[in-house]
Amino acid sequence: MDFLLHEWLGTGELLTRERYAEHDRETVDDVLDLSEALATRWFAPHNRAADLNEPRMVDGRVEMIPEVGEALRAFGESDLLAATMDAGVGGLQLPRVVATACFAWFQAANIGTSAYAMLTRGNANLLLAHGTPGQVDTWVRPMVAGRFLGTMCLSEPDAGSSLADITTRAEPRPDGTHRLFGTKMWISGGDHELSENIVHLVLARVPGGPPGVKGLSLFLVPKHLLRPDGGIGERNDVVLAGLNHKMGYRGTTNAVLNFGEGAHAPGGEPGAVGELVGPLHGGLTCMFHMMNEARIGVGSGAAALGYTAYLKSLEYARTRLQGRPFADRDPSAPPVPIIRHPDVRRMLLTQKSWVEGAMALVLYCARLVDERETAPDPEARREAATLLDILTPVAKSWPSQWCTEANALAIQVHGGYGYTRDYDVEQHYRDNRLNPIHEGTHGIQGLDLLGRRVRAGGGAALDLLLARIADTVARAKEAGGERAELAGDLAAAAGRIREVTARLHSSQGREAIPGAATAYLEAFGHTVLAWLWLDVHLATGEEEGAFHEGKRHACRFFLRHELPRIGAMLAPVEAGDDTIDRTDPAWL
Amino acid sequence: MDFLLHEWLGTGELLTRERYAEHDRETVDDVLDLSEALATRWFAPHNRAADLNEPRMVDGRVEMIPEVGEALRAFGESDLLAATMDAGVGGLQLPRVVATACFAWFQAANIGTSAYAMLTRGNANLLLAHGTPGQVDTWVRPMVAGRFLGTMCLSEPDAGSSLADITTRAEPRPDGTHRLFGTKMWISGGDHELSENIVHLVLARVPGGPPGVKGLSLFLVPKHLLRPDGGIGERNDVVLAGLNHKMGYRGTTNAVLNFGEGAHAPGGEPGAVGELVGPLHGGLTCMFHMMNEARIGVGSGAAALGYTAYLKSLEYARTRLQGRPFADRDPSAPPVPIIRHPDVRRMLLTQKSWVEGAMALVLYCARLVDERETAPDPEARREAATLLDILTPVAKSWPSQWCTEANALAIQVHGGYGYTRDYDVEQHYRDNRLNPIHEGTHGIQGLDLLGRRVRAGGGAALDLLLARIADTVARAKEAGGERAELAGDLAAAAGRIREVTARLHSSQGREAIPGAATAYLEAFGHTVLAWLWLDVHLATGEEEGAFHEGKRHACRFFLRHELPRIGAMLAPVEAGDDTIDRTDPAWL
Repeated sequence: MDFLLHEWLGTGELLTRERYAEHDRETVDDVLDLSEALATRWFAPHNRAADLNEPRMVDGRVEMIPEVGEALRAFGESDLLAATMDAGVGGLQLPRVVATACFAWFQAANIGTSAYAMLTRGNANLLLAHGTPGQVDTWVRPMVAGRFLGTMCLSEPDAGSSLADITTRAEPRPDGTHRLFGTKMWISGGDHELSENIVHLVLARVPGGPPGVKGLSLFLVPKHLLRPDGGIGERNDVVLAGLNHKMGYRGTTNAVLNFGEGAHAPGGEPGAVGELVGPLHGGLTCMFHMMNEARIGVGSGAAALGYTAYLKSLEYARTRLQGRPFADRDPSAPPVPIIRHPDVRRMLLTQKSWVEGAMALVLYCARLVDERETAPDPEARREAATLLDILTPVAKSWPSQWCTEANALAIQVHGGYGYTRDYDVEQHYRDNRLNPIHEGTHGIQGLDLLGRRVRAGGGAALDLLLARIADTVARAKEAGGERAELAGDLAAAAGRIREVTARLHSSQGREAIPGAATAYLEAFGHTVLAWLWLDVHLATGEEEGAFHEGKRHACRFFLRHELPRIGAMLAPVEAGDDTIDRTDPAWL
Repeated sequence: MDFLLHEWLGTGELLTRERYAEHDRETVDDVLDLSEALATRWFAPHNRAADLNEPRMVDGRVEMIPEVGEALRAFGESDLLAATMDAGVGGLQLPRVVATACFAWFQAANIGTSAYAMLTRGNANLLLAHGTPGQVDTWVRPMVAGRFLGTMCLSEPDAGSSLADITTRAEPRPDGTHRLFGTKMWISGGDHELSENIVHLVLARVPGGPPGVKGLSLFLVPKHLLRPDGGIGERNDVVLAGLNHKMGYRGTTNAVLNFGEGAHAPGGEPGAVGELVGPLHGGLTCMFHMMNEARIGVGSGAAALGYTAYLKSLEYARTRLQGRPFADRDPSAPPVPIIRHPDVRRMLLTQKSWVEGAMALVLYCARLVDERETAPDPEARREAATLLDILTPVAKSWPSQWCTEANALAIQVHGGYGYTRDYDVEQHYRDNRLNPIHEGTHGIQGLDLLGRRVRAGGGAALDLLLARIADTVARAKEAGGERAELAGDLAAAAGRIREVTARLHSSQGREAIPGAATAYLEAFGHTVLAWLWLDVHLATGEEEGAFHEGKRHACRFFLRHELPRIGAMLAPVEAGDDTIDRTDPAWL
């Protein structure tokens, strides 16, 4: 982390900016140390217990183990939820890149409990960007103080990936509020007794608006209404209809919520009371503020799970004795630590290249947020925004895919033990399997990248990214030796991405986009990671010692063993293969 | 199944052989129908219940849901356990290929319950091959009748992959029996109350033998000793020390067993009573009889789990309505079944190419067993034995790897629903994750293939396999059109395997074997599957209709989208890359 933040991402330079005037290297180190300490003390110990004792619905309320609430209270008291927020609302004004590194500690320790905090932070950030000053005072401040938690309510039973089909209805009332009616599904943190109140941000449709996503508006719907004095008032008409029972991520409640289905007082007006956030029919744009942040948060969580499992399998491999070297299997010699077996080293090195690469990716994206918000040069801000836009689907999908694979290898290093619930790695694997699904499935990320984001600004986004890659390539070539050699591989990969993109956005190629989008996303992701790895390689300079050698070695491995995967991903598109497109459903 | 058995694998021709004289197409169809009916009636209904209520150890005994025992009794009464055995011991004398297809129904319905039967069948087959007539009468007959179940006891807490480190000790007694002392770990079906008795086959060391695997002998150690009249006698000194709690495969007990640690009668002689099976110090060879069969059984189970999840995700994709076509997203149009989305079709087609390919592979291997045992021409028997030997690591590892990936895609097709325990696919995924671990890990299969099996007979095994591939290539080229084109891709892949094998077995290349073995195994596996798919394509002849078109389409997809993966797998070896080998553990 220190290396990535300071030696690679230039956090020192960042701290000289006006907004971060209160901070220096020491305060950054302190907040990282605090995060590690809190995560170790409050989050890690109940990770397994929360998995084994998932939340239950009893008499319409959610029961769960008390450690979850204790951890979230400790987190709330730390002010870390508001790490990046303005001092004016109680924030610490830390760079996003530092806050992301801090939060990764909590995700690695306990992804299920940390999810409540992540959703609340995204909710509060959305309100800071799109809410009124009154909404900030009323709702954000208690979230920052750890008294309220937040959710995002998009999906419905028949509208998951397809937001155009949302049917929840919001009827305007003369007092300016709305009344909501409908059912929301897959709501993480959707109900619990962990906080005084829950702030739901709900996409719904005001009658008379346009069909599809252009008719969606965003509403703030609290679990409890507030009294005029700001105290907790009566229950709003938001009813817990059920909990989903998941393969992993079990500590996070996942709820079906009914809005406006009868919990109102007898004789009272039906419907769940909500207030509009942002413009009427402008709900999707507001929600994408939170979605984009949540997507990088998913990537960060996936990377953190990958990383912690890697370290656990590394420790296991260093201490577990089994077998003898292939070339000298004298059975009377003592068994060796399994890290001595080349195939075990292969599994560890593969994990390292994936999980440290994934962490570099999400920190790089967080650094782009800082650049977008605080770069002195307006052109640099625009460029950061453009790069962030094109990299967001990668930051969400790449760690979700490859760090889950890394978890599979962490299990494999453990052998049979890794398949039992006595070791953490089996839980990390199950937990991580959610990440390619929520906040926009893997397939949706591909369509978003290839169908929309690479074309933004007439293709300027991709040009900018390729120019940054070319810059790294040029520096690596200048450095010579191995760096120059690896740079050649990266340049070739970037060239293939450029050509495939052009081909798919030509008039003949466009029809192939839906069938090719996932392979494109994966090849694009591997190319981006090869670029970041080579950039990290350059950042190690001439430093010797195991740590820097390890970074260079993981780069070497990624470029030579991983990057060649793009051949199989891109070959069918390059050859104009139409196998997927002409699949008749009857043949399946 | 019908297509694979009859149109592709020529089961009709097989049935003309003497051994199968009692059978014809009709009896084969009947036994397949019976298997489907029994699996559906007795095995499928409690698949989830066995997952949610895993076996527990209570007062030293195993408690589990009663449906497991009921299913195994129904299976025992069907005579299917002895499907391939001689009529003389109560067997049906069916071809192995038919029995494998039958058993896949049970594995697909409930892998956890079917495992007890699979282990018992392997145990009985080992005794038929290496036991004395007395051992067959005493132990095999009750297993065939469903009264006894069997296990294999190889692993110990510090000897999993490394059998050379087995320390369980067998002391000879004047009466010809042995007394065993030691602890065995990961024993599937190791204890339960499902049968009158449990027949353990245990690898142990008789004092004075050579070190390593050459000093292992095989012992039959029953849970209950038999009375002179054959009835169930007193408990042997085999004590259940604990159960492992697994990520999946939960219906199968997985036990730690202590042999000879004190359960003998007061004043009696200590140790668990065992009888030698096969020659002294010849235990590993005997056990490999069972291991090789179990490895193909693991492949068959993985393929069955992949297949059933594929069919479930296909059904879901046909009925689930969500979203609109990419090119025409009019939000006022009704949503379409998700199978209309190209990325969903891609996920289904990928699964199909993996799971139907895996099933073809395991049936092909079973067919080789039949050929080895009953081909009229002795040369054909030898060739079948050679091919079976080289394909066994692939039959074990390839379905384990790719059908688990297929299960991940089956989840992905279901979206969030697939991640919940309300749908079967999440359990199939967890169950299947065991398969790359047990019966020899993925890495062990690679070392076995590259380090030993491809070199068998001075390389004759590989030459024979490549000759078979060349034969399919020649027939496809003669057929012309698409077949000829796909044949070119297969021939190129086979050529790369030939060259890489030669390189790795050259005097300079041998050192790279341990680091390259897994990549080699995977590339070898994809090449074998491409061959089988092309052979299946040829077997569809000129048949039209969706079924045969679907087979051809899956072949096309596999050759064009999957086979190119071998590029990334082989590229580092071909380039002489030594990144893995020179990984310093300190860099990890």
